[in-house]
Amino acid sequence: YFSRSCIVCYTSHSLKLVYLFSNEYNQQSFHLKFVIGANSFLFTQYKYLAAFTVIFAVVIFLFLGSVHRFSTASQPCQYTKGKTCKPALANAVFTTMAFLLGAVTSVVSGFLGMRIATFANARTTLEARRGIGAAFATAFRSGAVMGFLLSSLGLLVLYVAIKLFGLYYHDDWEGLYESITGYGLGGSSMALFGRVGGGIYTKAADVGADLVGKVERNIPEDDPRNPAVIADNVGDNVGDIAGMGSDLFGSYAESTCAALFVASISSFGADHDFAAVCYPLLISSAGLVVCLVTTLFATDFFKVKTVRGVAPALKLQLIISTALMTVAALVVTFAALPAKFTMFDFGEQKQVKNWHVFFCVAIGLWAGLAIGFTTEYFTSNAYSPVRDVADSCRTGAATNVIFGLALGYKSVIVPLLAIALSIYVSFTLASIYGIAIAALGMLSTVATGLAIDAYGPISDNAGGIAEMAGMSRRIRQRTDALDAAGNTTAAIGKGFAIGSAALVSLALFGAFVSRAGVTVINVLSPKVFAGMLAGGMLPYWFSAMTMKSVGSAALKMVEEVRRQFSTIPGLMEGRATPDYASCVRISTDASLREMMPPGALVLLAPLVVGTFFGVHTLAGLLAGALVSGVQVAISASNSGGAWDNAKKYIEAGASEHAKSLGPKGSEAHMAAVIGDTIGDPLKDTSGPSLNILIKLMAVESLVFAPFFAAHGGLIVN
Amino acid sequence: YFSRSCIVCYTSHSLKLVYLFSNEYNQQSFHLKFVIGANSFLFTQYKYLAAFTVIFAVVIFLFLGSVHRFSTASQPCQYTKGKTCKPALANAVFTTMAFLLGAVTSVVSGFLGMRIATFANARTTLEARRGIGAAFATAFRSGAVMGFLLSSLGLLVLYVAIKLFGLYYHDDWEGLYESITGYGLGGSSMALFGRVGGGIYTKAADVGADLVGKVERNIPEDDPRNPAVIADNVGDNVGDIAGMGSDLFGSYAESTCAALFVASISSFGADHDFAAVCYPLLISSAGLVVCLVTTLFATDFFKVKTVRGVAPALKLQLIISTALMTVAALVVTFAALPAKFTMFDFGEQKQVKNWHVFFCVAIGLWAGLAIGFTTEYFTSNAYSPVRDVADSCRTGAATNVIFGLALGYKSVIVPLLAIALSIYVSFTLASIYGIAIAALGMLSTVATGLAIDAYGPISDNAGGIAEMAGMSRRIRQRTDALDAAGNTTAAIGKGFAIGSAALVSLALFGAFVSRAGVTVINVLSPKVFAGMLAGGMLPYWFSAMTMKSVGSAALKMVEEVRRQFSTIPGLMEGRATPDYASCVRISTDASLREMMPPGALVLLAPLVVGTFFGVHTLAGLLAGALVSGVQVAISASNSGGAWDNAKKYIEAGASEHAKSLGPKGSEAHMAAVIGDTIGDPLKDTSGPSLNILIKLMAVESLVFAPFFAAHGGLIVN
Repeated sequence: YFSRSCIVCYTSHSLKLVYLFSNEYNQQSFHLKFVIGANSFLFTQYKYLAAFTVIFAVVIFLFLGSVHRFSTASQPCQYTKGKTCKPALANAVFTTMAFLLGAVTSVVSGFLGMRIATFANARTTLEARRGIGAAFATAFRSGAVMGFLLSSLGLLVLYVAIKLFGLYYHDDWEGLYESITGYGLGGSSMALFGRVGGGIYTKAADVGADLVGKVERNIPEDDPRNPAVIADNVGDNVGDIAGMGSDLFGSYAESTCAALFVASISSFGADHDFAAVCYPLLISSAGLVVCLVTTLFATDFFKVKTVRGVAPALKLQLIISTALMTVAALVVTFAALPAKFTMFDFGEQKQVKNWHVFFCVAIGLWAGLAIGFTTEYFTSNAYSPVRDVADSCRTGAATNVIFGLALGYKSVIVPLLAIALSIYVSFTLASIYGIAIAALGMLSTVATGLAIDAYGPISDNAGGIAEMAGMSRRIRQRTDALDAAGNTTAAIGKGFAIGSAALVSLALFGAFVSRAGVTVINVLSPKVFAGMLAGGMLPYWFSAMTMKSVGSAALKMVEEVRRQFSTIPGLMEGRATPDYASCVRISTDASLREMMPPGALVLLAPLVVGTFFGVHTLAGLLAGALVSGVQVAISASNSGGAWDNAKKYIEAGASEHAKSLGPKGSEAHMAAVIGDTIGDPLKDTSGPSLNILIKLMAVESLVFAPFFAAHGGLIVN
Repeated sequence: YFSRSCIVCYTSHSLKLVYLFSNEYNQQSFHLKFVIGANSFLFTQYKYLAAFTVIFAVVIFLFLGSVHRFSTASQPCQYTKGKTCKPALANAVFTTMAFLLGAVTSVVSGFLGMRIATFANARTTLEARRGIGAAFATAFRSGAVMGFLLSSLGLLVLYVAIKLFGLYYHDDWEGLYESITGYGLGGSSMALFGRVGGGIYTKAADVGADLVGKVERNIPEDDPRNPAVIADNVGDNVGDIAGMGSDLFGSYAESTCAALFVASISSFGADHDFAAVCYPLLISSAGLVVCLVTTLFATDFFKVKTVRGVAPALKLQLIISTALMTVAALVVTFAALPAKFTMFDFGEQKQVKNWHVFFCVAIGLWAGLAIGFTTEYFTSNAYSPVRDVADSCRTGAATNVIFGLALGYKSVIVPLLAIALSIYVSFTLASIYGIAIAALGMLSTVATGLAIDAYGPISDNAGGIAEMAGMSRRIRQRTDALDAAGNTTAAIGKGFAIGSAALVSLALFGAFVSRAGVTVINVLSPKVFAGMLAGGMLPYWFSAMTMKSVGSAALKMVEEVRRQFSTIPGLMEGRATPDYASCVRISTDASLREMMPPGALVLLAPLVVGTFFGVHTLAGLLAGALVSGVQVAISASNSGGAWDNAKKYIEAGASEHAKSLGPKGSEAHMAAVIGDTIGDPLKDTSGPSLNILIKLMAVESLVFAPFFAAHGGLIVN
């Protein structure tokens, strides 16, 4: 059990720094003697993932190979009439390879992101001694490094894969870009486990730590006396950082794959115009340069010096990157695309001009910004919605929860209208390709998005280290200030993630329908409508599983923490060391065990429906899941963010109004803590996991489309 | 202000009884000196509704009249080629008349239902002296009277309207049944205000009364010292009884209208087969007879004698009525319908056999039963889901809420699969007509459904009267036992209401699309998909409004109740009378003011989208609202029901497990009370109001379809 529960002496560079530092202050350094590294949890998780990946790779190969009964003979092409294409068996082999490649890249991205974050935590704590500006720059730069690493790695591997696969496929671009879609599936299926497993891990620990530590024992957050504190801090890294990284990496890979596939069966493919086909990659590359320049605005051109400067600086990042990217997209579009071309449009070829495509990028970009700002408005305690929620704590936890839920519901209005508008415009201008490009537009500033997103958990953990190392109150106040801004940016990041997921999954949906050879999905048909209703239910089923998992694991955690407080003598007085390892074990076990059923639901639903009910019902299922999942995800993550910041608003007591509700420990504050605890699984487990649900089901349908078209609908057809 | 806030000396028969009775015991009868009647609230509400109805009637007339520019010339028929039909202006006039008729009938139904309930409350209290069996029979019979009254009134008025309108229309059945659809719109728009206004009224009072009375002051529920107690009890009648009655009446009227309309443009209409066209009315009439027989099983054949007998007796009602109705439907179908006929199927005529239609009725019926039983499983504290929720109270309110939300999410799975299956079967067998008939099948046992549903609030209020009149503990225990079963049956009723609403709104959706002359609604079109996403957002927007309204009104109520407790000397000791009227005024004002914005949202959304974006986007909007709204409604009402019963489970302490969580006032119980309070607006305001949202938007689209088809899509088309 010792090896499985991953108890290792954490000796990474970052913690050596903290050792030195805490020795300097010579306070409570013994608490750090056995620290469980986030990477050891990840390694255990990876063992499970490796097993899953191998099994699923075999499934992909068998399903796709069976399309033409494993024949090695070349086939007439599906879209380019009169030509022959590579056999379905070759597509099965290369799709499987692309899947493995995507899975490995996703895992490496998540792991590197997490390593960067754990390095950054301790450095941020150290820099906090020098002042808020230095700490901010460190946390933000680390986030940026992670953002760049992740986006460029995804791009690079995809480009290399296209080139290598091309050696076999030559001029059969249909087959080449069909196979490449496996890359998206690989990336996204790893993201599923990263998000769900990481989400359960972090929130079981967080809820458990808060319920006993803060509510019952009245000790501060991240206090080393709390046995769950290590699990909580490890969780921030595996959930918020590794999970978020995999998620956005998946979106990135998937929207690129969808765009590439549609381009390959359009005039770009027919003309073998490689530059035009690679336009999605070029847009992403331009995005990397833009984000690089943008980060300089936060760290070099306008340095953040005060706490008040943090939130505006992060907001400015969004605006600058969006504005610069609009210009860059204009340049790339006119350089890479011919003035006129055709795009595949469900059996037809649609006339498109290059400036149409530019508008698709632009609307995606600006819709992302609109979503980001709406999220900020609803989750930052600088505005009235969160203040109203805080105010409702006056009458207890119940009104707090009612107001918070209502806030989450209300916060979906603008994002949904923004998404609907971008879908309308990009779909009208360039059909499915337009939507994929709009998604890439929204994601082109992903490096900035990840930077401001990762910044949150890094600051949070920096605070945790400061508390555990017993550093001065002043330093903790600085990291807290950074963390409060981080909560809002985390919500903004989630807004981006879900907004882009909606566009991506619609693009994948379109690509799936195209690849399955269907031209109309009629709502007025029993198969489709029944599928839509069932699909609309899946996000609820999925959320029920993940919420319940967090709840059950948290109950166990609470019992363990209570047990330790009551049985370990001297723990409350700080004279004894708690058994951190047993709490880590609870989170690890819960995460690994509980991520299976929701994972199975998401992966099996399209396979079962496609195989037994056929393409039309599956299309309905995907549409229903998309329409209902987006709303649940946005409302869950914003309710959670608002409760968290309402609590922080009361704790900070920065205004007369906030003071009248506080201080810590007041009735209103206790109500706010309950709201925050409820919000934890909503905003960090079930909400963000839904992105993956809607994307993964769509990309899986796309990959298996040839099978469903050939053999699907065993019951209904 | 005096007249508006409706403070009247309530002198109805029911309260006279209580007077007599409480005088007999001579305890605290002075608390009943000034009781505010639920009917005075309703009268105030009706004034507002009258104004709305007149304005909306004018809108209907103007929009529909403008279809052919108010021309009085006859037009070529839309469906029966080569014939002439009455002018659009006539349809405008008769649709407006049907609308007014539907509105008046709905209001009368709601009012009579409420009167019956208030009469029944006091009688149930009195009968509780004689024992549980007598009290049960009284409460249940009253519910049944209400159910029969409501269903038969709806049927009668509809039949008379068809006959009267027929005097003008003669053989133009297209026009006749087009106009009749106004009846559904009238019924449903009144139901909107009944549900929303009533829901806000009752929950503002309930939450306010509980938060101060039970949580802060630790006095029992319905204690006459609580200033909000009268408002709370009045609320039960206006919300649960009048609101529910209007809702189910609306479903009834709408599904009948949808079926009649489709039948009129099918071979029934072409052949002028009046018996076949009136098949929906015949099914409903058969349902009345079946339900009448069924009630005898609860009150005469197998009398309920003990508390344990209540829940099984109610469950048996559902099973018996479903089984009997299946037989009745078989008879009616073969008697009324020709063996073979055609049904309008989006521009085509589909061949249908009479036994196909029987299967549509049957699947609706049995799907209703499946939904009812699932709801019972998830909301009754006899089963593990609610017990798990109760158990999670051990670690506080936060885990209670997390578990309750997860339970609500999980509870949508079976109902949604049941609805999807019935849609698939009935849609495949008889197109839109099949869905309308399946909806009527589910509603054919509505009288039984209403009986077991109304039974809940009646028992609840009976308990309230017992408490206020200071009757013995034994009597209160009896009414409490009835009430606990009532909570589950209320949830079952809500399950029926939302299940039938889903079918009804899909039937209306199909009728709308047919009437607008559209044959395909393609998901793969920008207009439709953007509409779907926006539609999926509407239930959230709507819920945000209603939840926030309840929250704000509850805050005011809490402040008023706190103020009275702190400023009225001797109130806690029972020596002074609280100012009930001011609490009633808060609920009344909040309800009337706050029902406007959500009402406007529901009524304006289809008009705006249809007028500016056209029929396809509107169809997408309706489909999206349906798919997302059903899930939100079911999960909200079941989470709420589960929290309520988890609390009751702890309070009752009937098992070892329950005792370990209790007693009243324990930490776990306080956590359960918080969950219950959060569930109140979910299960009694926002959840059930969503039924109306999805139905009303669909029936409104149907009524305005000729206008949208002629002039819609000003921006996009």
